[in-house]
Amino acid sequence: MAHYQKMLRISTAGKSLSKITPKVQAVVAESGIQTGVCTLFLRHTSASLLIQENADPDVLKDLENFFSKLVPEWENYIHSTEGPDDMPAHIRTALTSTSEQIPVSRGRLVLGTWQGIYLWEHRQHGHTRELVVHVMGE
Amino acid sequence: MAHYQKMLRISTAGKSLSKITPKVQAVVAESGIQTGVCTLFLRHTSASLLIQENADPDVLKDLENFFSKLVPEWENYIHSTEGPDDMPAHIRTALTSTSEQIPVSRGRLVLGTWQGIYLWEHRQHGHTRELVVHVMGE
Amino acid sequence: MAHYQKMLRISTAGKSLSKITPKVQAVVAESGIQTGVCTLFLRHTSASLLIQENADPDVLKDLENFFSKLVPEWENYIHSTEGPDDMPAHIRTALTSTSEQIPVSRGRLVLGTWQGIYLWEHRQHGHTRELVVHVMGE
Repeated sequence: MAHYQKMLRISTAGKSLSKITPKVQAVVAESGIQTGVCTLFLRHTSASLLIQENADPDVLKDLENFFSKLVPEWENYIHSTEGPDDMPAHIRTALTSTSEQIPVSRGRLVLGTWQGIYLWEHRQHGHTRELVVHVMGE
Repeated sequence: MAHYQKMLRISTAGKSLSKITPKVQAVVAESGIQTGVCTLFLRHTSASLLIQENADPDVLKDLENFFSKLVPEWENYIHSTEGPDDMPAHIRTALTSTSEQIPVSRGRLVLGTWQGIYLWEHRQHGHTRELVVHVMGE
Repeated sequence: MAHYQKMLRISTAGKSLSKITPKVQAVVAESGIQTGVCTLFLRHTSASLLIQENADPDVLKDLENFFSKLVPEWENYIHSTEGPDDMPAHIRTALTSTSEQIPVSRGRLVLGTWQGIYLWEHRQHGHTRELVVHVMGE
């Protein structure tokens, strides 16, 4: 049984989904682990993780549109000192995921054919986000 | 420390929650692991996992009704080539879970009395869905 | 590789977020594990887990307000025998998390500076909630 842990720094563009599947798969390959589980943990409260369709980029636009409408910036939030996009970013994070785990088999993530791993930036401007990738197994 | 991994194929009915608790518990029993963690990972982007009330089936109907209203099929989605139910299915998956993990104690999932594990089909028609169950522990 | 599992009982106030970061960190310290993963699992279907901003308490009020509006108590739910707040509590749980996992490094949770772990009570009245904390690693 081995544990392999690495922190990745990922630059995002404002309000968009960045595909990070190859970066995560590269850490799994580095770990040398063949059978196990890969845990992803994002160290932020205004960006989140999502496993979603990796084929048609329109799916990502519809996701962004839906969440922008569901959590509007023009609502009267009590927490407003960090800008109109900050509280909506917290709520969008609450509605999606801060952590994910994906089993590993034969040294690869067991993702389905249409699944990609995304880091979703919920703020108006891009940031550098820290993602901890932890692979455990044998 | 042992790792035990198995892929289950589960047939679903359209837009409904299928209880899979016994199937998952059976894999935990097969693994022989007494203390550890069971990770569930669904290999799809238009169906999801949910741990919810297992007693009153009306809870499942209200869940389906709420999500059908929250993510309507008659919205103007950009991604529409796969039918009016496909983009809503992606959004409903984003709002719920692709992975879950449940600790194991004395060879059993530590679920609460009222908790059941469900596979939630978000498409109009049933599908065969692939669920990876990974049990690690000792 | 070691496994350390403990069940915490946590008293909540009605419809509010209780910060549990120190309680979880204490279990990690007790485990003696330096590198690994901490899994949290809440044994309930009307309360949930959330990793969110730990600095400005107004964020927690806005979260509660948003979810109260998104999942109103005055809707016509089929499941109503346990009170008007019960079905909304199930839906709010479905929209957030029953399980979370946080990697451990040098004996500490790798939380970001602004991240706190919260137990979110979705019922009108407080309850005693059971949280299973499982730490595995070396």
